[in-house]
Amino acid sequence: MEIASDQQAMALALEWAAKGMFITTPNPRVGCIIVKDRRVIGAGSTQPAGQAHAEVRAMRDAAARGEDVRGATVYVTLEPCSHFGRTPPCADALIAAGVGRVVAAITDPNPLVAGNGLARLQEAGIEVASGILAQEARELNIGFFKRMESGKPWVRMKAAASLDGKTALHNGTSQWITSQAARDDGHWWRARACAVLTGIGTVKEDDPQLNVRAVDTPRQPRRIVIDSRLEISPDAKILHGGGTWIVCAVSDPAKENLLRERGAEIISIPNPGGKVDLQALMTELGRRQINEVHVEAGFKLNGSLIREGCVDELLLYLAPSIIGDAQGLFDLKALDSLEHKRQLHFHEVRQIGPDLRILARFD
Amino acid sequence: MEIASDQQAMALALEWAAKGMFITTPNPRVGCIIVKDRRVIGAGSTQPAGQAHAEVRAMRDAAARGEDVRGATVYVTLEPCSHFGRTPPCADALIAAGVGRVVAAITDPNPLVAGNGLARLQEAGIEVASGILAQEARELNIGFFKRMESGKPWVRMKAAASLDGKTALHNGTSQWITSQAARDDGHWWRARACAVLTGIGTVKEDDPQLNVRAVDTPRQPRRIVIDSRLEISPDAKILHGGGTWIVCAVSDPAKENLLRERGAEIISIPNPGGKVDLQALMTELGRRQINEVHVEAGFKLNGSLIREGCVDELLLYLAPSIIGDAQGLFDLKALDSLEHKRQLHFHEVRQIGPDLRILARFD
Repeated sequence: MEIASDQQAMALALEWAAKGMFITTPNPRVGCIIVKDRRVIGAGSTQPAGQAHAEVRAMRDAAARGEDVRGATVYVTLEPCSHFGRTPPCADALIAAGVGRVVAAITDPNPLVAGNGLARLQEAGIEVASGILAQEARELNIGFFKRMESGKPWVRMKAAASLDGKTALHNGTSQWITSQAARDDGHWWRARACAVLTGIGTVKEDDPQLNVRAVDTPRQPRRIVIDSRLEISPDAKILHGGGTWIVCAVSDPAKENLLRERGAEIISIPNPGGKVDLQALMTELGRRQINEVHVEAGFKLNGSLIREGCVDELLLYLAPSIIGDAQGLFDLKALDSLEHKRQLHFHEVRQIGPDLRILARFD
Repeated sequence: MEIASDQQAMALALEWAAKGMFITTPNPRVGCIIVKDRRVIGAGSTQPAGQAHAEVRAMRDAAARGEDVRGATVYVTLEPCSHFGRTPPCADALIAAGVGRVVAAITDPNPLVAGNGLARLQEAGIEVASGILAQEARELNIGFFKRMESGKPWVRMKAAASLDGKTALHNGTSQWITSQAARDDGHWWRARACAVLTGIGTVKEDDPQLNVRAVDTPRQPRRIVIDSRLEISPDAKILHGGGTWIVCAVSDPAKENLLRERGAEIISIPNPGGKVDLQALMTELGRRQINEVHVEAGFKLNGSLIREGCVDELLLYLAPSIIGDAQGLFDLKALDSLEHKRQLHFHEVRQIGPDLRILARFD
């Protein structure tokens, strides 16, 4: 393939970045291609944290192909890093390799990098540019950008309902309102999340595993249960495999020990009302380097998260059916005026099998 | 424009048919173009009932341009009629004009025509074909086809809701959940309907006119109110301009006279429960040559119409907002099992301004 424009090259680099969708957390998904004489001579994407970044992978790829990267143009979907983290700075590696030009889709939101990477390259006499497909690059790492800019993760709430907004019958039946195709698609969104979050109500009613099964992934997302009073059964499936975080608002050393024996970690974040302080939890999750949170919870916790302004995006699957009198989507008190409704905007709408998948973001 | 294929010609004929969207009722919207030597030499579309059909209009257009239709190919979006209705048979006119070939998008569902038009042309030595863009031609006249095939109109239920399926606050406030763009779009759907149908609840609460204002139309659709006990006020705005049909289940000669003085017609169709028999009403509307019914009603009547299987299609505007505890879309009793949910399929989804417009059809 002949590379005819910066845009075309960056689109290819973004495809490489997407290969890291399920694995790079807490690092961003980054792709890199190296172009010389209009030919791609190397390509790479970020590996799991602690391993080589995309730029270094692409240079190694070029070397393995016997290509000379001196004077080449490097397209990278995020500004090369300039600091020592778990790996040495990529900017230095590019300088050492003698590349001629570096094009970044977008500058790094990390305050430790923020323009320094490109500046360092420029000081070394390398031509730099940025802002090519910047929006696409930001979208690919929307959680990483949110965390770097606000300290909190991007929270995506998944829900499935009938056309009249019903999620379950009053007798609790909810399997299945949406199709197999929609449920499988939901697993793709779980797989890209750093953590899947649910509430004790869902754990008691459905005893879900909340792991990724319908798509292949080498990494399972962290599971988090909001369980103010530590009611979870030590036999709950969500504890299987270990690593689950139980977020509570009480202290119960005996129960906590029981849960720790199941590999769980207990995080106590009470608010004055004796429940979990959801906003403080989001700050804690940010501190723990969680970029994207995938919420699959019930009527009540969904309502609380929305009410407390913790949700960035709805991932709503709508089935082409009508149910009537039944459980609704979100437990939110009646409003006095429509001016107080929560406003969102549609980000993307697609048909998945017979169902509709709506991504809507809070304004 | 050079016409290179039957398909291209028929697509153009369909554009002509669409010009009749608001006016041809109870006749179907039909378009016709005449092609000779790959040039369009005439075009026309059906006019209000009683005036010339599309084929005759297209031949007159050709004549006005000084073109000779002998030997030409006629593309028409519905099989030419072969019977004397309010106008003479179009098939005869085409034979008399000496055209060489007639291509119909679809055969006529009217039992009085049903293949006879094409047969008659063929007997006269004219080459005929049909089935070009048949699905599109049927969609354009979905109400006419439904009425011809079942005796009942196509019933399209319009509703507007938030993402969580709420249509109004408990205090009755519903203005406005969706945008001006969505509300204007709703008027386009009113304008194409033969009749707009609502219930006494909506008339009492909102006193709507339910006429077409946001788009230009030379014809206002018939207005119909389901009012089992004849509770409507003689001052209700929906009676302004006259011609409104009030459908009831009681007899009240004094009230009926009062309403007749307002230009209304009273139609009594009781069921054994003392309410309007909705299925029988649909049969009556079919008998009265109503092709497309546009329902804009409230929670209760919407639920009744769906429960009694009277609705073919939902026209649902979803606003990107969340309201919480509030009025839902359809008054339908709780189900025992999800197997009993009403099943639809998505026909079309589009963004209208900030809102989503969903066309979903009952299976």
